[in-house]
Amino acid sequence: MSEFKTLDREEPNYFGAGPALLPTSVLQEAAYDLINYEQQGLGIGEISHRSKPAIKVIDETKANLAKVLNIPDTHEVFFMQGGGTSGFSSIVYNLIANYAKRHPGKVGKAAYAVTGSWSKKSAEEAVRLGFDVDIVVNTKANKFDDIPPYSEWKAIDKENTAYLYVCDNETVNGNEFKDIPTSEYLPEGVELVADMSSNILSKKVDVSKYGVIMAGAQKNIGLAGLTIYIVKKSLIEQPTDDELKSYGIPRVPIAFHFPSVVANNSAYNTIPIFTCHILKLVTARLIEKGGIEYIQKVNEEKAQLLYAALTKYPNFYKLPIVNPKVRSNMNVVFTLPKDLEDKFIQEATAKNLTGLKGHRSVGGMRASIYNAVTLESVQLLVAFVTEFAEANQ
Amino acid sequence: MSEFKTLDREEPNYFGAGPALLPTSVLQEAAYDLINYEQQGLGIGEISHRSKPAIKVIDETKANLAKVLNIPDTHEVFFMQGGGTSGFSSIVYNLIANYAKRHPGKVGKAAYAVTGSWSKKSAEEAVRLGFDVDIVVNTKANKFDDIPPYSEWKAIDKENTAYLYVCDNETVNGNEFKDIPTSEYLPEGVELVADMSSNILSKKVDVSKYGVIMAGAQKNIGLAGLTIYIVKKSLIEQPTDDELKSYGIPRVPIAFHFPSVVANNSAYNTIPIFTCHILKLVTARLIEKGGIEYIQKVNEEKAQLLYAALTKYPNFYKLPIVNPKVRSNMNVVFTLPKDLEDKFIQEATAKNLTGLKGHRSVGGMRASIYNAVTLESVQLLVAFVTEFAEANQ
Ligand SMILES: Cc1ncc(COP(=O)(O)O)c(C=O)c1O
Ligand SMILES: Cc1ncc(COP(=O)(O)O)c(C=O)c1O
Repeated sequence: MSEFKTLDREEPNYFGAGPALLPTSVLQEAAYDLINYEQQGLGIGEISHRSKPAIKVIDETKANLAKVLNIPDTHEVFFMQGGGTSGFSSIVYNLIANYAKRHPGKVGKAAYAVTGSWSKKSAEEAVRLGFDVDIVVNTKANKFDDIPPYSEWKAIDKENTAYLYVCDNETVNGNEFKDIPTSEYLPEGVELVADMSSNILSKKVDVSKYGVIMAGAQKNIGLAGLTIYIVKKSLIEQPTDDELKSYGIPRVPIAFHFPSVVANNSAYNTIPIFTCHILKLVTARLIEKGGIEYIQKVNEEKAQLLYAALTKYPNFYKLPIVNPKVRSNMNVVFTLPKDLEDKFIQEATAKNLTGLKGHRSVGGMRASIYNAVTLESVQLLVAFVTEFAEANQ
Repeated sequence: MSEFKTLDREEPNYFGAGPALLPTSVLQEAAYDLINYEQQGLGIGEISHRSKPAIKVIDETKANLAKVLNIPDTHEVFFMQGGGTSGFSSIVYNLIANYAKRHPGKVGKAAYAVTGSWSKKSAEEAVRLGFDVDIVVNTKANKFDDIPPYSEWKAIDKENTAYLYVCDNETVNGNEFKDIPTSEYLPEGVELVADMSSNILSKKVDVSKYGVIMAGAQKNIGLAGLTIYIVKKSLIEQPTDDELKSYGIPRVPIAFHFPSVVANNSAYNTIPIFTCHILKLVTARLIEKGGIEYIQKVNEEKAQLLYAALTKYPNFYKLPIVNPKVRSNMNVVFTLPKDLEDKFIQEATAKNLTGLKGHRSVGGMRASIYNAVTLESVQLLVAFVTEFAEANQ
């Protein structure tokens, strides 16, 4: 261990899309806990996932999430290993199995809204695994530049559809849902399922309206390796494995089987307790700072400042999301003249503004301004994009 | 953050079965790296899994493993999210798919040796997922008290079997394979697959003899959340998803699809880089200390000492594994008179010897003496079990 190391750092101005920034104070606390948790002489990552201190970590994390998101009693909170990808794979198996329980023996289908690269992958995965999928909207031809109003989406086959899947915030493309489907669009009995991997805990959400909220932890709230599920209790039960076989419905790998995970309080198998502990610390800190109202206000301010700075130079910065209403408050995607991209990154880096390169599949720039990215960092970025446009336009 | 906290601790004498002890020096190094990795101003858990420093972590971890285990070029090393359970689920999908590639369109079956609770769960999971399974040995009726010689196992259906699955070390029951199947038993072309979750890197292994070695990281070598795969390259390729559908072979969830994971150097999806980094540090430290020969010697000495102390009091301590040859060098399972169990745990705890309670499914005691458990810790435990027997027998 180098003696030059300290448990401190300059506050980063880091805009990476994920894994992403975490509050320094949380990481410091976690660093101690990795070695000697609650002065018990062992680190939090070294104890059994079924020991009392581990169960306490799980329970407190659940309670913090329930408090921050005002999760009603109708919903269960649980954790599984993995991330967003294992999350969207798990959802289709579990919800189609549950549908066959609630409509005995019936093999339901799933409706997917394809509004960006993550919802596209989710829909493709459901098909790949052998499930029946309806695409109710697909904006790929327009490079996912907007989210059309529900009135323009294909009607849902309400007699046969288990759920409607949306990706609430498209991390790569930079669009975000600002409302949920109207009751005219979403038929009663079809459950709303949302991937919130990149915007969970960024804004108020009416959990009661969702069948499932799923989020990989590694963007807004934690380290990679853990997925958060908030699931309506009525969606958890399933037919037996033999029944599923007889219906022709594939079984989900057991570590991702909602009933087993829930029955074992998220410790059916060894979930990563250190990662869960970080989530506990992040959510506790958020509660202390003022909860979801507080962070939503800060996030809106950050996004408004940055979008305003970019749109001030419409001939220099372009925003691929054409409809201002659905621009993401988390991932601000923009382009500038191609020949200036390297210069932009170099000068930003010189000012200690990092993580700004866009996703390899779309190019350009992306500033991810998650919960842990401070208003001060965004102000520095705003000053830089302004200067850079003035100097180079 | 409490000012009483330090990044240090007394050396623990902890015998928990998993998640388990890690070297204090590794945790200290990791604690710094969680906050400021390589003085770059960001923690190792906050950077993109596709960034240069993350790729370097993955590559160095692979190289360390290759060095320690002397992994030949014929084998690929890769990582996935999850643990042992997602590991054994993934194996059956991937290997049956691969078999259908090597024997075009043919749906193979799998042979399972059931020698303890983990191999039992693995076999049950393969059946649950819809695959065809032959149980070639099952010692459940004898409480998994021995591993019968291969000559007594049921013959493998060599025309139709893709692989033979064994759990190399049964963590709960305390038995361990000390040899691999003879060529008389294992037909050419049937691949040997081993779950080494609780003994990987504890002893020399001839990797060339295995089709797949799989291990959750959280026992001998790391934190929960990461699974290590060492897979013969010829076992990675698979038919297309459409071909698999036409053969009636279920597809594995994409995050666990060997070809996709390998093609993306273990970063198809967001693997937990911090957890991988710990694995890198643990393996680097092992290399420094003298590699697999060194640790195997220490592990054998530890196990011999402890088993010798216990067998000295055959009327007091009982060893459920009746055949001394297959007793585990990692998980030493023993019982003592039931009415003395609480006293044993209390007095051990008073001497700072912890984590000794057996698995809830079998009761009794279990001392897990993984790589990170020092000879000194085992000597203290040996002194204690001796004293306790003398005082209470
Ligand atoms: C919205 C969304 N969903 C799913 C994923 C996939 O997550 P993972 O890489 O953890 O599988 C991502 C990752 O960037 C994401 O942003
Ligand atoms: C040998 C073995 N295999 C598989 C597992 C399951 O691992 P996990 O809890 O990570 O799913 C364990 C866990 O104790 C184990 O010891």
